Amino acid sequence: MTHDCSFLEALDLEDDQFSVAESRRDAHAADWGAEQRGEGVRPDAVVWPESTADVSAVLAAATDRGVPVTPYAAGTGLEGNAVPADGGISLDLTRMDDVVEYRPDDFQIDVGPGVIGSAVDEYVAPDGLFFPPLPSSGDISTIGGMIATDASGMTTVRYGEVADWVLGLEAVLADGTVIETGSRAIKTSSGYNLTELIVGSEGTLAVVTEATLELAGRPEQIRGGRAIFETLDDAAEAVFEAVRTDVDVARIELVDGLSARMANAYLDADLPDAPMVFLEFHANHGIDEEIALCRTIFEDHDVARFEMSDDDAEMDALWRARRELAYAVASYDPDLESLHPGDVTVPISQYPEIVHETKRLAAEADLLAPCFGHAGDGNLHYSVLVDPDDVAMVERGEELYAAIVERAIEMGGTATGEHGVGQGKREYLEAEHGAGAVETMRRIKRALDPTGTLNPGKVFPETARGERVREDSALEATETERPHSDR
Amino acid sequence: MTHDCSFLEALDLEDDQFSVAESRRDAHAADWGAEQRGEGVRPDAVVWPESTADVSAVLAAATDRGVPVTPYAAGTGLEGNAVPADGGISLDLTRMDDVVEYRPDDFQIDVGPGVIGSAVDEYVAPDGLFFPPLPSSGDISTIGGMIATDASGMTTVRYGEVADWVLGLEAVLADGTVIETGSRAIKTSSGYNLTELIVGSEGTLAVVTEATLELAGRPEQIRGGRAIFETLDDAAEAVFEAVRTDVDVARIELVDGLSARMANAYLDADLPDAPMVFLEFHANHGIDEEIALCRTIFEDHDVARFEMSDDDAEMDALWRARRELAYAVASYDPDLESLHPGDVTVPISQYPEIVHETKRLAAEADLLAPCFGHAGDGNLHYSVLVDPDDVAMVERGEELYAAIVERAIEMGGTATGEHGVGQGKREYLEAEHGAGAVETMRRIKRALDPTGTLNPGKVFPETARGERVREDSALEATETERPHSDR
Repeated sequence: MTHDCSFLEALDLEDDQFSVAESRRDAHAADWGAEQRGEGVRPDAVVWPESTADVSAVLAAATDRGVPVTPYAAGTGLEGNAVPADGGISLDLTRMDDVVEYRPDDFQIDVGPGVIGSAVDEYVAPDGLFFPPLPSSGDISTIGGMIATDASGMTTVRYGEVADWVLGLEAVLADGTVIETGSRAIKTSSGYNLTELIVGSEGTLAVVTEATLELAGRPEQIRGGRAIFETLDDAAEAVFEAVRTDVDVARIELVDGLSARMANAYLDADLPDAPMVFLEFHANHGIDEEIALCRTIFEDHDVARFEMSDDDAEMDALWRARRELAYAVASYDPDLESLHPGDVTVPISQYPEIVHETKRLAAEADLLAPCFGHAGDGNLHYSVLVDPDDVAMVERGEELYAAIVERAIEMGGTATGEHGVGQGKREYLEAEHGAGAVETMRRIKRALDPTGTLNPGKVFPETARGERVREDSALEATETERPHSDR
Repeated sequence: MTHDCSFLEALDLEDDQFSVAESRRDAHAADWGAEQRGEGVRPDAVVWPESTADVSAVLAAATDRGVPVTPYAAGTGLEGNAVPADGGISLDLTRMDDVVEYRPDDFQIDVGPGVIGSAVDEYVAPDGLFFPPLPSSGDISTIGGMIATDASGMTTVRYGEVADWVLGLEAVLADGTVIETGSRAIKTSSGYNLTELIVGSEGTLAVVTEATLELAGRPEQIRGGRAIFETLDDAAEAVFEAVRTDVDVARIELVDGLSARMANAYLDADLPDAPMVFLEFHANHGIDEEIALCRTIFEDHDVARFEMSDDDAEMDALWRARRELAYAVASYDPDLESLHPGDVTVPISQYPEIVHETKRLAAEADLLAPCFGHAGDGNLHYSVLVDPDDVAMVERGEELYAAIVERAIEMGGTATGEHGVGQGKREYLEAEHGAGAVETMRRIKRALDPTGTLNPGKVFPETARGERVREDSALEATETERPHSDR
């Protein structure tokens, strides 16, 4: 669908703040996931707001004219979250990258949505602080994007997800209203928790223009290392046992034997092609005791090697296979491509089972499905490798991909632990939450964005915007000519 | 307003599940706070649901007939949260007190809303687990009530608030729809966070019928003790410095000199009438180092005494003044009563200032205002003592009470850190959140409860139910007779 975006010219924007150039529109038509899926739809225009007032003006005008607005930043999403499903405006927030205020005494920082995650870490490092829930893409993805999907990652097992570290937001509703949510007090029981409602809503309820983040003190001691197991079941059981025993681990990453084989080949490493667990411990006191406890548990599960270090270079070397894994998988076989990157997450007691099932289903489908994950959270990332020219293979791959998501939901888990629903996981929303909860989400969507301006075609199997289009059709009987029709 | 509740007889409820008896209605007309304020309005009927189906049937029928429903449990609220503002039905959830499922391997338990907080702790203790965010009233108040206000308390400084430990909910909307929220996976980025929206919404959006709680492993070491300071400013500064230095404390409670005087008199204790800080440390390793760090900081702020113990009886003795404080304040002078118990919470950097301001404003008003608080959170509870027969004194007390709340909001804090808004803090909602955020909350309220059935007269300065009544008035022109009118 094409939308007339010429109204942008009448807004109080500089010439370099909006564009309808092909190259700019192309650059906003995909994310990491959509690129692989070929799902990208080009926006009709790209706007780079530089202030909350800019965002408000664009949203109010777009809502008036029935033009969809899809917030965009680094484009590192995996589920097509920031890729227009219906054209309109791509609202690129990367220029809103100021540190607005920093209050180290309160462990708080206010930043624009376009700030890169690792830039927050660097900014506060001189005071011995850090922003703990950064995902693996933290050095390229933005705070706004992380808030959109309630991102998380390796350190979530100890520190929680992004939502746990957002104290408040400034956000703009579809009609241009600017709201502030939350409190600078670290706890409040005043009013509805709009902060947590907006975090993870993928730009479908409001556009975040500023976030108040909480920070933590850097741990005095960090140790990192690697354990190698005989079997994947042993490795997964060992992780479960460590979590159940409440071992205070800051990262605990599982890598299956197939992934290890790919990493070893890619790195030309002298390591067995065997399941590995990568560990990191953070503490101010007692780190040795904690590592010893973990080692004992791993030994009960026949760990073959258990190596830890407190030296940065050595830790780096031990972690190398994990760090390079994505590249290793991608370059393993030039004829094979990975279907739909993403993740599922299950209760930790089900972790050995989802890992086992994933491998069993892959074997059954006769497909390669290397898997790894932030195991301490019950998180599993898996790639299904297919030859894109082999239609039957792609179909088997799609079925395998879906079967694993469905198994995760059956186990009480989620179709998407950290990348949002976007376009990729919409069909699982109702299976996971039930019809009542999904209808409740829709009611909230309609209440806050009645015209369906914000990021249509995401999260819900059939979107609020889809509904709006139907309403418009009904209106056509009486209203024959409307400016800026979206059809 | 009186509401005809005779429709309850037609529902599938046992005789002992509803009552219109005076004594039962009286028993549901007040909470701890409302009792003191005399704000209680009697419900027209009390219903004791025993299942989710019961709750659903009552809500659907009440919504059909325009009868308000106010959820109720232990009645320990301070802001009139569970006290009917408009009659109707008091929905007493105390019979829904089952442990539905316990999954110790996942650190999870599913309970009914009527379960007493400490009962959860007792249930899971054999596995070395506990429910960390219990408020001080945890041995009498219910999980449902804690969820309603997003309660917190002494241990929040280390473990967070109730919301941080709720993974998912079963809840019933005003129209009787049963929804499930959240996931058993410890993280999810699927769909809107309905769990966090319902937690803290004080029964105005949905009635919680089951909660999935997260549990934590009990710390291996606990130490407790007390520090006594020369001045209140020193004590408050010491707390701020300890928090800023990231001392890993599990409880850190401030008590001012006036409160200490009351406690010493009440307990006939041989202690100075001086500001005190009560401490508890939880750790598996390194507890000595952490206590030494805290002591050093306190010594920098001229601490006069610093006593710690790992013996249960000794810790109890050291904490006695804090534990008995509420009774000590209440019995200090039989002619004086405390106005509006409740709390404010500010960013920790503002803590010395809010404590100082509270005492300054009290001196200016020539009133006694003993104060104490969960200081590590920036939380301050204060009582304004007045002779209820002295109209001028009561007026000065009201002004002092309001001035402290307003100062907290000016400092970036909240009018209510842990007891919800209820009826007592409604007038501060807009000052704290701004008009845009409050209107957004109202939109959500109207979307989920369009008829304003659930707990009208709470949270919002002018309630959704108030609006409904106005809409009804407009309707009266065309609709002359309606069954179960609420006027």
